[in-house]
Amino acid sequence: MCPFQKMECVSLPPLSTFAVCGGTHGNEMTGVYAVREMEKHTAKKKGSVSITAVLANPRAVDACRRYTDTDLNRCFTDALLSSPITDSSPYELSRAQELNTQLGPKGSEKAVDLLVDLHNTTANMGLCLIFYSVDWITLHIYKYIQSKMPSMPVKAIQLDIPISDAYSLESVGKHGFAIEAGPQPGGVLRADIFNMVKEAVDHTIAWLEEFNSGCTFEGGEVEAYTFIRSVDYPRDQAGELTAAIHPKLQDNDFQLLRPGDPIFLTFSGETVKHEGEELYPFFVNECAYYEKKIAFHLARKTTFTFPSICVAKD
Amino acid sequence: MCPFQKMECVSLPPLSTFAVCGGTHGNEMTGVYAVREMEKHTAKKKGSVSITAVLANPRAVDACRRYTDTDLNRCFTDALLSSPITDSSPYELSRAQELNTQLGPKGSEKAVDLLVDLHNTTANMGLCLIFYSVDWITLHIYKYIQSKMPSMPVKAIQLDIPISDAYSLESVGKHGFAIEAGPQPGGVLRADIFNMVKEAVDHTIAWLEEFNSGCTFEGGEVEAYTFIRSVDYPRDQAGELTAAIHPKLQDNDFQLLRPGDPIFLTFSGETVKHEGEELYPFFVNECAYYEKKIAFHLARKTTFTFPSICVAKD
Repeated sequence: MCPFQKMECVSLPPLSTFAVCGGTHGNEMTGVYAVREMEKHTAKKKGSVSITAVLANPRAVDACRRYTDTDLNRCFTDALLSSPITDSSPYELSRAQELNTQLGPKGSEKAVDLLVDLHNTTANMGLCLIFYSVDWITLHIYKYIQSKMPSMPVKAIQLDIPISDAYSLESVGKHGFAIEAGPQPGGVLRADIFNMVKEAVDHTIAWLEEFNSGCTFEGGEVEAYTFIRSVDYPRDQAGELTAAIHPKLQDNDFQLLRPGDPIFLTFSGETVKHEGEELYPFFVNECAYYEKKIAFHLARKTTFTFPSICVAKD
Repeated sequence: MCPFQKMECVSLPPLSTFAVCGGTHGNEMTGVYAVREMEKHTAKKKGSVSITAVLANPRAVDACRRYTDTDLNRCFTDALLSSPITDSSPYELSRAQELNTQLGPKGSEKAVDLLVDLHNTTANMGLCLIFYSVDWITLHIYKYIQSKMPSMPVKAIQLDIPISDAYSLESVGKHGFAIEAGPQPGGVLRADIFNMVKEAVDHTIAWLEEFNSGCTFEGGEVEAYTFIRSVDYPRDQAGELTAAIHPKLQDNDFQLLRPGDPIFLTFSGETVKHEGEELYPFFVNECAYYEKKIAFHLARKTTFTFPSICVAKD
């Protein structure tokens, strides 16, 4: 069923290989179980698409921790992927290079056509795609998932980083995005979040099938959030937190923050307010970002336009 | 202000020492920050009560993990507290013996009069006291906190274990209970949960003051949940999970489970139902219990009665 089959379109190469990764952070359970289930049940080739399910950081999964030596999902820059491995290298650096060999090499013709990496967050971000530079395939899939899951909060974040400096696993594919799903605590598996992510992956596979079969996907526009800056917690001279996220900000990812809106509540009961321009918070109170000194990120809402696309005929 | 000052009462010794512990599990952040704040701001002696704030497992707090070698909060049985410490002993066992020296010894006249240990859970348990054998002081404080926090879900769980086998830190005090507060992910601090627990601790201190000053507390009854049994996740032959908590059970701690009610949803979409008698679930989808093979506990609702009490005059 291709509603816009006869429309003018930009023709792009077929997308015949698809990698779904999970467990890049070993305590983000949706991806761990989604990948295990795909390994059991998915035929290697589904129609026109060859699907690979990869448990990205098995050591961290076994330990049920985000990582063992260093954050794997910060290891996929060109520089780190080409750095020498020695006995003292962090496990995750060598694992990143293995994954790059298996699914890339990043930036090469041999790289998998689409790579989706499954993550969870303790923030109330619903289902959220994260992508780097503007990529028409990703934007089309984002719009498609939104249209297929109208009752779900499906959003997207763009990180404006050159692909060579892009540090996360999905940057290894020719096209790629992360799916963040939350709120879910580390080490916990929630059925509602699992089913939401599974559905998004199934829609992605369906989109690839339709694209490869010759459907034209109509151009248009989508809204996404472009990362602007991060905000740290208030801390004392020893670096210890002196405040928590304010209850009025907690769980309110993607709700516009205006100057004067409360952002922190100190342990002694004082409110700290947002200053500066109106921006949208996300990753509010993400567990793993305490050590990165990030209480939340701020973004601007951006409209991305993209053309109608179709598969190039042989 | 003692509303029942002239009533008949069972007289009990004054409660002049109070220990508040946190960080017994190093990634349960409410207790970590509550104890740090109390160390900064609480005068050592407040009226008739001498207060000690103790960070119970500093190594686990530094690592932001539940424990480093073994679960500290399973180390306070008589047997483990008297077991020899060697170079190969887990850190938490030696730490338990240190805490027993500082706050106990358990079962002795030197033990702190009241010990409250602050915990978090990823389960939706609100504010929940956990206590061992029936203890009038704990039941009175529970009733008092309920009356002072009428808008909060304040519940209590009783574990019917002899005090010598009681494995958790609060068993070291002459009287003691744990406060579980949730839902809060491990490694995350939520202001709403922090303030709820801080208020409960403040009410506990206020109750101790009133008791020591000669107020009579009227007898009565409270409802609590008595632990009956635990339920594990469905697993395959390799021991891997094949299901998650069902969305209709998730977040519904303390809601009566009837035979036929859904409890698990398998990854292939089948519902597993509750069998046997009507019971109340709690600790539903607690992060730390995956490794203990516990999906949730089941309890019976019990009414506990207790007499009017007052402090013994010199």
